[in-house]
Amino acid sequence: MPEYRKDPITKRWVIFSTERSERPKDFGKVEQVIDSQECPFCEGHEDMTPPEVYALRDEGSQKDGPGWKVRVVPDKFSILDEDGDLKKAGKGIYDTMSATGLHELVIETPNHMGSLINLEYHEIETFLKVIKDRINIKKDDYIIQYVLVVKNYGSEAGAKFKHSHSHSHIVGLPVIPKRVREEILGAKEYYEFRERCVFCDIIAQELSENERVIINNEHFVSVCSYAARFPYETAIFPKKHMSAFENTPDEYLSDLAHILKDTISALCGVLDNPAYNIVIHTAPVNQIMPVLYHWHIEIMPRINKVAGFEWGSGFYINPVLPEDAALHMKENLRS
Amino acid sequence: MPEYRKDPITKRWVIFSTERSERPKDFGKVEQVIDSQECPFCEGHEDMTPPEVYALRDEGSQKDGPGWKVRVVPDKFSILDEDGDLKKAGKGIYDTMSATGLHELVIETPNHMGSLINLEYHEIETFLKVIKDRINIKKDDYIIQYVLVVKNYGSEAGAKFKHSHSHSHIVGLPVIPKRVREEILGAKEYYEFRERCVFCDIIAQELSENERVIINNEHFVSVCSYAARFPYETAIFPKKHMSAFENTPDEYLSDLAHILKDTISALCGVLDNPAYNIVIHTAPVNQIMPVLYHWHIEIMPRINKVAGFEWGSGFYINPVLPEDAALHMKENLRS
Repeated sequence: MPEYRKDPITKRWVIFSTERSERPKDFGKVEQVIDSQECPFCEGHEDMTPPEVYALRDEGSQKDGPGWKVRVVPDKFSILDEDGDLKKAGKGIYDTMSATGLHELVIETPNHMGSLINLEYHEIETFLKVIKDRINIKKDDYIIQYVLVVKNYGSEAGAKFKHSHSHSHIVGLPVIPKRVREEILGAKEYYEFRERCVFCDIIAQELSENERVIINNEHFVSVCSYAARFPYETAIFPKKHMSAFENTPDEYLSDLAHILKDTISALCGVLDNPAYNIVIHTAPVNQIMPVLYHWHIEIMPRINKVAGFEWGSGFYINPVLPEDAALHMKENLRS
Repeated sequence: MPEYRKDPITKRWVIFSTERSERPKDFGKVEQVIDSQECPFCEGHEDMTPPEVYALRDEGSQKDGPGWKVRVVPDKFSILDEDGDLKKAGKGIYDTMSATGLHELVIETPNHMGSLINLEYHEIETFLKVIKDRINIKKDDYIIQYVLVVKNYGSEAGAKFKHSHSHSHIVGLPVIPKRVREEILGAKEYYEFRERCVFCDIIAQELSENERVIINNEHFVSVCSYAARFPYETAIFPKKHMSAFENTPDEYLSDLAHILKDTISALCGVLDNPAYNIVIHTAPVNQIMPVLYHWHIEIMPRINKVAGFEWGSGFYINPVLPEDAALHMKENLRS
């Protein structure tokens, strides 16, 4: 049974999911290539996954059969236990909690394509719409405090398989993640000081300085962050204040699909198809102050190693100025 | 010129050190093997490093010549500017600071040995004594707020060269690292609640439960942490309350050398010579409440990839229970 444990000093939760365990000496050494013959995510192979919980389907097609655009299934290797009750307990000074929560995979396309940038704009738009809908559905579960959407591309980014079929994870958690809590806390302090959203102020300054902006369309802007942890780390913000991703109007999603595909394409052009992680940071389910959080997407290329200095300090060393990174990416957009 | 930039939301500092920059497509792809012929850290090659700032030398030997046990030199690829003044400035909502600080390398042995576990106990004891002395000397610099000691072993742990000559980094920072600040904050809250050191309580519970203890000698204990982020992550604590590593009595260092070498040896046995990071977390230079911080060493094997879930949430997924990890390591000690 998976279990959450809380670090009594830093209050960080760790999920112990021993069913995923490999033999000690095998860690991180497997990198399997999956072709379309054996790919459980390809159209026609629906029986290789658990039954779907949601799909955008052609009229007349059957559940768990072919004829879909986007398909959502429970993760076979889920880190969380969907059916369990949330049990919290103490053991001396330690805190533990049952690893209750939801873990779904969104299969972004019926075709065996490994990278998001091979998808058409309208396909990405559809997949973003599905993610929006799934988050809204999950929010009805009384245990879920936060819904995190992540994508791992390439083995350095933690993807299990090489050249895999493009998919994302939706994880519903019974607690608000530490990183999101930090952002909310920082935004709250800023709001109390200035009575403005810190994200809105960042966007305004980025647009006015125009040194780190990569793409600026009607509703969204992508920038290399001023204090990026990683070389070429990029963020996408809605230009209008909006706390929850899942409340984004559908008519904005075409713009979002364009900026997402074009930003990642530029990244892949500059860095030669790097591994990367994508994270959607939306507001917690029970928003107390929607005025202070502002949803955004973080794109983190995994091209340099994180060393002892970073693990020990929580600070990062970045060898590339975001101004230079933005310039390289803009040049790549034009070429 | 290196520069610190502060994330305006999470308040994390990032050091931009562009002099270390490689071409975008070369990131993380170089892994050079250095043999003793070309190793700048070997005895007899003292002219290949910047002039030493400290060395434990045989009587009659010359500065920057052979005849030393442990040698300390400035890092040629320093991330920090030793001579600069500390300049802080704002730019709109962003904060920046000159990357002032100290960055030294401690060469742990004159012999070309890549791993700490190839050193004799008395050699490790000597090298720990030198680190203690260097921290105490650095504390006199009025700019330095924190001295971090880290060791990277193996390329997955961020080491630049494969099979390199065993060495550590001492980094003097003008700010307290985020991770240490979090520990202090957590320890402070605990102290206010219970009027006891949280680390002392952890040690007491670990010794009494004896489920995660690997080695327990007169002055130190090594344990697989209850909420370890990484498989086989291990911590070493002095059993007596002591806030600063650099105040450890010299007569304790033999015990520390033994527990450090034996713990890492067990780790290397179980995991087949893994990459790892070692961090010494000591109290900040200007200790306000020595009663609440408790120095410790963190040993983090780098055997699994950090994926989008971890980067996006700040939570970790660990496939190995620390109780199992401790058991494997103890079995390896005996064999």
